[in-house]
Amino acid sequence: MKEFHGISASPGIAIGRVFLYMEDSMAVPKYTIEHDSIDTEISRYEEAVNKATSDLNQLKEQLTKEVAEENSRILDSHLLMLSDSMFNDQVFQRMKNDMINIEAALKSVIEDLVDKLNASRDLYLRERTVDILDVAKRIINHLMFRERLSLADINTEVILVSQNLMPSDTLLMNKRMVKGIAMDSGGRTSHTAILAKSFEIPAVLGLRELTKSINTNDLIIVDGHHGKVIINPDDDTRALYEKMLLEYQKRESELLNMNMLAAETKDGKLINLQANIEIPEEVDSVLVHGADGIGLYRSEFLFMQPGRVPSEEQQYEAYKTVLEAMEGKPVTIRTLDVGGDKFIPKVNNLAENNPLLGWRAIRFCIEHKEFFKQQLRALLRASVFGNLKIMFPMISGVEELEKALAILEETKDDLRKEKINFIERIPVGIMIEVPSAAMTSDILARKVDFFSIGTNDLIQYTIAVDRGNEKIATLYEPFHPGVLRLIRMVIENAHEQGLSVSMCGEMAGDLYSSVILLGLGLDVYSMSAISIPEIKRIIRSVSMSEAEELVGTIMAMKSFGDIDKYVRNWMEEKFDNIRY
Amino acid sequence: MKEFHGISASPGIAIGRVFLYMEDSMAVPKYTIEHDSIDTEISRYEEAVNKATSDLNQLKEQLTKEVAEENSRILDSHLLMLSDSMFNDQVFQRMKNDMINIEAALKSVIEDLVDKLNASRDLYLRERTVDILDVAKRIINHLMFRERLSLADINTEVILVSQNLMPSDTLLMNKRMVKGIAMDSGGRTSHTAILAKSFEIPAVLGLRELTKSINTNDLIIVDGHHGKVIINPDDDTRALYEKMLLEYQKRESELLNMNMLAAETKDGKLINLQANIEIPEEVDSVLVHGADGIGLYRSEFLFMQPGRVPSEEQQYEAYKTVLEAMEGKPVTIRTLDVGGDKFIPKVNNLAENNPLLGWRAIRFCIEHKEFFKQQLRALLRASVFGNLKIMFPMISGVEELEKALAILEETKDDLRKEKINFIERIPVGIMIEVPSAAMTSDILARKVDFFSIGTNDLIQYTIAVDRGNEKIATLYEPFHPGVLRLIRMVIENAHEQGLSVSMCGEMAGDLYSSVILLGLGLDVYSMSAISIPEIKRIIRSVSMSEAEELVGTIMAMKSFGDIDKYVRNWMEEKFDNIRY
Repeated sequence: MKEFHGISASPGIAIGRVFLYMEDSMAVPKYTIEHDSIDTEISRYEEAVNKATSDLNQLKEQLTKEVAEENSRILDSHLLMLSDSMFNDQVFQRMKNDMINIEAALKSVIEDLVDKLNASRDLYLRERTVDILDVAKRIINHLMFRERLSLADINTEVILVSQNLMPSDTLLMNKRMVKGIAMDSGGRTSHTAILAKSFEIPAVLGLRELTKSINTNDLIIVDGHHGKVIINPDDDTRALYEKMLLEYQKRESELLNMNMLAAETKDGKLINLQANIEIPEEVDSVLVHGADGIGLYRSEFLFMQPGRVPSEEQQYEAYKTVLEAMEGKPVTIRTLDVGGDKFIPKVNNLAENNPLLGWRAIRFCIEHKEFFKQQLRALLRASVFGNLKIMFPMISGVEELEKALAILEETKDDLRKEKINFIERIPVGIMIEVPSAAMTSDILARKVDFFSIGTNDLIQYTIAVDRGNEKIATLYEPFHPGVLRLIRMVIENAHEQGLSVSMCGEMAGDLYSSVILLGLGLDVYSMSAISIPEIKRIIRSVSMSEAEELVGTIMAMKSFGDIDKYVRNWMEEKFDNIRY
Repeated sequence: MKEFHGISASPGIAIGRVFLYMEDSMAVPKYTIEHDSIDTEISRYEEAVNKATSDLNQLKEQLTKEVAEENSRILDSHLLMLSDSMFNDQVFQRMKNDMINIEAALKSVIEDLVDKLNASRDLYLRERTVDILDVAKRIINHLMFRERLSLADINTEVILVSQNLMPSDTLLMNKRMVKGIAMDSGGRTSHTAILAKSFEIPAVLGLRELTKSINTNDLIIVDGHHGKVIINPDDDTRALYEKMLLEYQKRESELLNMNMLAAETKDGKLINLQANIEIPEEVDSVLVHGADGIGLYRSEFLFMQPGRVPSEEQQYEAYKTVLEAMEGKPVTIRTLDVGGDKFIPKVNNLAENNPLLGWRAIRFCIEHKEFFKQQLRALLRASVFGNLKIMFPMISGVEELEKALAILEETKDDLRKEKINFIERIPVGIMIEVPSAAMTSDILARKVDFFSIGTNDLIQYTIAVDRGNEKIATLYEPFHPGVLRLIRMVIENAHEQGLSVSMCGEMAGDLYSSVILLGLGLDVYSMSAISIPEIKRIIRSVSMSEAEELVGTIMAMKSFGDIDKYVRNWMEEKFDNIRY
């Protein structure tokens, strides 16, 4: 029995046999070539590129039937790379300079590129190496006449274990047969993580050297809740996890049964539970889990597709797809939130000493007005297809808000002149995630239609703690009395102006926070779709008066530690099974 | 006439003739040597090092009479480097490897070292290259029998212009004859900046290529208020600046005349005006400008002396010196505030993505308990020599404060056991610079003796803006209603517990903020000593009722822009000459 710890990328438990899917090797022969074989090498390369292109086109056709369009765009970016003559010329140049065979030249160019990307401070760029390697291996396989094993052909239930799944692997794999995923590489923002969560496959990523200690057919437990993997468990451990799995499945099915029920407290207060999404593919899961709408559609993921900045038309299509799929339920789309820890190649790649306190989100958009207007045009045009709300991130004060609103008005004027339809009175809201916005929420409330509290950033700024910094991560305390007071202030100020308040940070999907937020008067909780049933269960089991009493008690406490301890006891006494 | 813009490092205006002090050149001959001349080269080097050492010792002796001990410690670090056998061995090794003359070997080793330091993200480390070059040039001068021109010998009034003054240059220069300083390099935290301010010599630094456009005896205007330098001004400009200089001198002498007067409003409220200092040398200036005490002694500057971390004894001596010199007036010493934008070699040099939201100040000290206790011991031992107050930086909540207080208690216990005297009821306060501390200031007020609001950080965190980031620096708004409300909240909560509130951020020395702070109820202003007379003049010209009326008006306003405009008009109508 061996235990490995990684990153919890998608919740749930899976127990099964390992299917070890090793990367196609980049190992290629290297030999010097004569001048007269250059033409042969070039035509070998072009043939391989053509075959890879037709593979991908075929794959794309297969995919668009199965999953939504956005995913097939990943393949578009791969196709783009295959047809990139600058890239291909670079390979030819390398071959001619070094007088080596084309496989070796390709490998050398790719390795340089990957080194450059890996040296980047930008997590997103580093993860794009996966796409580049995917394309390169496809070409190499054809050059070397290797057959590519397809994950679509898996026909027994397995746990998929790999060094690094290619995005195309994850899209193509037989999702009914893959019960869990364990991977050496990968982080929470990798495509594999997003897709695993969306397909509800338990996944643990970032396991470093797992594949070195494992073989196909080993028994493996993937614990997606705790980011843990156990190989060849002893009988006791296996029995324990089988029991946990059964309980989890039971609870999941109970929870899903609640989909038709409202999120209503025992004394009749209706709460709105919505979902956060990053890609349109997640809409299915949003509906399955009974969300009342989408409380946060992070539009920046559209901009993070490799190889392109989306056009107005591409944005419009994406927004329209989600709006139509949600059939009249509210869809809150946040305008581009770039910077901080999210960087978009070619758009912003400023080296900042403190990016979280830097040129982010609305600050960036206000200065790149044409860029911002393009997104607003796409949003307004899509507004006629559903129940759209527009939300601005990182507003720090009334001046910034007024600037953003003026650009929105200007965009509306443009559309009017062009006689393009849009919903005139489209609701506009702001994220409350900067302390100065919370402190002036009474002023801001008069200028917008709704607030959404972004607790992740609000907590970071309020306590001056970058939660990505492991040296001080323990200071990131959602129950810090200073944070709770700010949240209460925001909700009170909003309610005084008749505004509804949503929360879309991680706190909204946290079980232990749920009753506190109820007692503070939160109207809309927005979270990962899979968390909705559990939060609904809690809301349906308490009354507003209980929640308000709990809040009354903790708001009189002096420290995070006291509050945290009290709330944990209170919740665990009231709800069994809250801890897993 | 040519104008150059740099960094305003020390205020005031100077008009005079340029004394161009070019760096001693690092240009040395390079030639290959034979094996049998290695010994000769080594003894040439050792002789030069000995001469440099005796220069420095002589200089040090000269200095300790003139300026306080701390500055001569800069020279100690230079002496340390001269006697550093690892460094010298490196030079010998380079010579033997490359078989080159010793000057060339020294230059090559130094250049590598400087490159490494310059590549650092750490401003402090980059500025240490100055010390290294200072030492290297001293050795080279002796190796090449060059005489070093001494700035001590300047005997007519001049404006000193240089690429980069060495710390020893600034210490040694004839301060009566140097009327202004203009320098290509240097920032606000350089020794030259600190010393120029302390000696009240107008200085503009960071002028990049000024020395390329200037010659000795050119007429030059140094405008330290605006960070501007004008070479060979036309008659009108010269006349304008001469008038400004006269006015400035007149106002300065009027202001200094106010030293014996109290900072009392027209209706009799006494305000306490104190000074911020970084090095003990500044105490003279503190007393000359009529400060009621030291509101912030930034102890980290003790730790930033190159080449060493100060011992308990060295700290004790520094604290004792300041306490004795202040003759019973309060001296508030802030415990080590490291991290953020201040790094100490060998102590903390973590690479953080967001250092301002990182492992700073009290967070660092609580984890390095022995290190922290050493400082607390030095402080407690020094407490018997004056009116000491201890202040903790970056407190974010009650848990952190309790941990820091427990370590202080532990240190007191140790001293009691060792029968070492200290003031038992030494006042302990905290910086309020994290929004969560401001939001819970009612709780924190019950645990300490005083607050000091650190507006620089408080504003940065509240608005989520790194003011060092030029892309967004305009968002750094001291008059943001969110900031003003937080300040008001802190003062009200403190007063309710009978605590006095100080402010030691730049806002406390800002003329335009002074009446607002009065109206908000601030008890102690702590600022650069040179700002005290001007702030005193303002306080003596208004009544509390006027100040409270101003605050009442602006607190009802919605935006930074409205408040800023109103306050500027109000202040400029009331006080002529406020703008210069």
